[in-house]
Amino acid sequence: MKLGLFGFGCVGQGLWKVLHETKGIRADIKRICIKHPDKQRPVPTHFFTTHAADILDDPEIDVVVELIDDAEAAFEIVSGALSRGKAVVSANKKMIAHRLPELYALQQKTGAPFLYEGACCASIPIIRNLEEYYDNDLLTSVEGIFNGTTNVILTKIFEENLSFGEALKFAQANGFAESDPTLDVEGFDPKFKLCILLLHAFGVFVQPEKVLHFGIHRLNDFDIEFARSRGSVLKLVARCFRENDKVAAYCLPRFVQKGHRYEGVRHEYNAVTLESGFSERQVFVGKGAGDKPTGCAVLSDISALHYQYKYEYRKFGQNGTFFDTKGTLLTVYVRHEHEGQVTESDFSEITERYASNKAKYLVGKIQLEKLQTAAWLREPGVNVIEYV
Amino acid sequence: MKLGLFGFGCVGQGLWKVLHETKGIRADIKRICIKHPDKQRPVPTHFFTTHAADILDDPEIDVVVELIDDAEAAFEIVSGALSRGKAVVSANKKMIAHRLPELYALQQKTGAPFLYEGACCASIPIIRNLEEYYDNDLLTSVEGIFNGTTNVILTKIFEENLSFGEALKFAQANGFAESDPTLDVEGFDPKFKLCILLLHAFGVFVQPEKVLHFGIHRLNDFDIEFARSRGSVLKLVARCFRENDKVAAYCLPRFVQKGHRYEGVRHEYNAVTLESGFSERQVFVGKGAGDKPTGCAVLSDISALHYQYKYEYRKFGQNGTFFDTKGTLLTVYVRHEHEGQVTESDFSEITERYASNKAKYLVGKIQLEKLQTAAWLREPGVNVIEYV
Repeated sequence: MKLGLFGFGCVGQGLWKVLHETKGIRADIKRICIKHPDKQRPVPTHFFTTHAADILDDPEIDVVVELIDDAEAAFEIVSGALSRGKAVVSANKKMIAHRLPELYALQQKTGAPFLYEGACCASIPIIRNLEEYYDNDLLTSVEGIFNGTTNVILTKIFEENLSFGEALKFAQANGFAESDPTLDVEGFDPKFKLCILLLHAFGVFVQPEKVLHFGIHRLNDFDIEFARSRGSVLKLVARCFRENDKVAAYCLPRFVQKGHRYEGVRHEYNAVTLESGFSERQVFVGKGAGDKPTGCAVLSDISALHYQYKYEYRKFGQNGTFFDTKGTLLTVYVRHEHEGQVTESDFSEITERYASNKAKYLVGKIQLEKLQTAAWLREPGVNVIEYV
Repeated sequence: MKLGLFGFGCVGQGLWKVLHETKGIRADIKRICIKHPDKQRPVPTHFFTTHAADILDDPEIDVVVELIDDAEAAFEIVSGALSRGKAVVSANKKMIAHRLPELYALQQKTGAPFLYEGACCASIPIIRNLEEYYDNDLLTSVEGIFNGTTNVILTKIFEENLSFGEALKFAQANGFAESDPTLDVEGFDPKFKLCILLLHAFGVFVQPEKVLHFGIHRLNDFDIEFARSRGSVLKLVARCFRENDKVAAYCLPRFVQKGHRYEGVRHEYNAVTLESGFSERQVFVGKGAGDKPTGCAVLSDISALHYQYKYEYRKFGQNGTFFDTKGTLLTVYVRHEHEGQVTESDFSEITERYASNKAKYLVGKIQLEKLQTAAWLREPGVNVIEYV
């Protein structure tokens, strides 16, 4: 197998290294396409090119590994390679979540395999397991901690008493958060992963825009104290589930009781919980961020191409399921700034109300649909946490 | 797909039910071979036979599902079916652990697939993941809680202050332990699973007799108090690992500190931890005992046969690894009854010694090989627990 790499950041460099270390895998990197040819790199210069065509149009290269940041450019590379009948491996969750219908169609048309295990919870082999192992099981829900950055921040907050701002700074200083942490901290990133898993778990294509996400960016000391007073920590949880033919999904921070299995999932670890009528509860825990865990998933995908592995998307169309958030009732804690800021009539039931000079909150039941469209949710003084 | 079933206990009956409930899987049970034709059963009598040949020699039946207890009879059925080119699914760990070389050879000879995910930790898809996903990763160790019965007993002891005897009675009364609990309680069962995983993780055939196992049958109140006094609980842990080309394995009870990931693995849950140079630590948690979790694994195997799945045993021969316990140093707690009962010169270092009228123990480092052959380990007054 001859590989063409796009991008040579940490994951790409780790891949280079491990391909030279591992005995079992027979794959050589032939060419690496990069943006900045003048950077010092630990690999001979003749491997590098700045022209995508040098890889895409090289008939000797049969596998393209896409490891760049830019989602638009990544889509061009991936779709270009698939169109030419090349196998493709990628870990670009943002691009994949948005372009799954086209990428699925391209695979059907060309027969070329497209693998992206690294896009969902890095080293946890969740897509492969949903594809292969839970194919005909009676799967009812998939949920978990899908984002390493926010989990590092939340661990620091609850174990070392840092404020949100301090914990974010720690995560940035230690390579766990980008200088612009929006995608992680506001919950976009776990939602992208959720959208990918929705296809492999329940056979539905769901555009990210259709799914409610809310991150940990509004978390303040009052919320943190509230969690502690209830014997809880906070985790950012993405969740999708099936009820008969209907599939719903959302991503929200959640109060997690001490002793719950998610409490022990700390720092950059991720967890995925599958529930099914037959196997009951399965939990997968592994590192969800970092170069090595992502590189491991990319390597496993490359290895799987050796034996012509491809996703079969067996659930697509199989169950007659469709995406519909109607009828999903959530219990949430809503902290707000002033009286009347939250439309109480949006709630079907309010079980707690609190007001002081310091803060106000309510706890109540609300339809997912109402929460998703509520204007008050957009106001900076409002924070929402699932209360289970 | 037409199935022939051997055995119609709880797993078989659950399978019958779920095959009628699941939309995605197209497989019919054509015939069920049983021992006692006069038992009342919730299925029409024309499905049943007492003659193995009615299934094995029926050319319409392409998949044999073996779900009986008797290891010898199970081997006859499985090898008979494979020899006739039929696909086989089994969950009989004792039989498989002892007969893997023959069963491997039969698969190579006939090309018929033999799947047995249900034999290792029931619903946890560990064999499939080792086969597919960790194929070319730099796997260094596989370990975990592989036995549900002993984990139920240990959970009861440490969470409800039961004695070993009381906890065993609870497990038996609630269907978690056989009336003869030897295989589980003395650690045979997790060792059988370990032997199966040794092939799929590291590509080595290891007969169960070659692997040290020690169960929880000698546990007394003094040991339990000792664990508590060190802030620990007890778990029965089976472990195999690779150092360069050498693979070693053993199964011992272990002190597990509060807060360790295994502490939260309670009751009939099992856990498997994989360590690798690249993905670092992966943990799989799921129910390791019971009809439904085992049935789930059997169902997934049947489902995989739809797309001609078979184990490739890629690691066999790939790494040039071999089984060798030499050079493996363990730190163990050894509780004993009288002075001089334990040969202290077997230890390379003794770090603690305690003696009172109530009990005596020592903590020290010992070569796995010495421990395995030590005569004093066989004496009923001696208990061994790994101290990590």
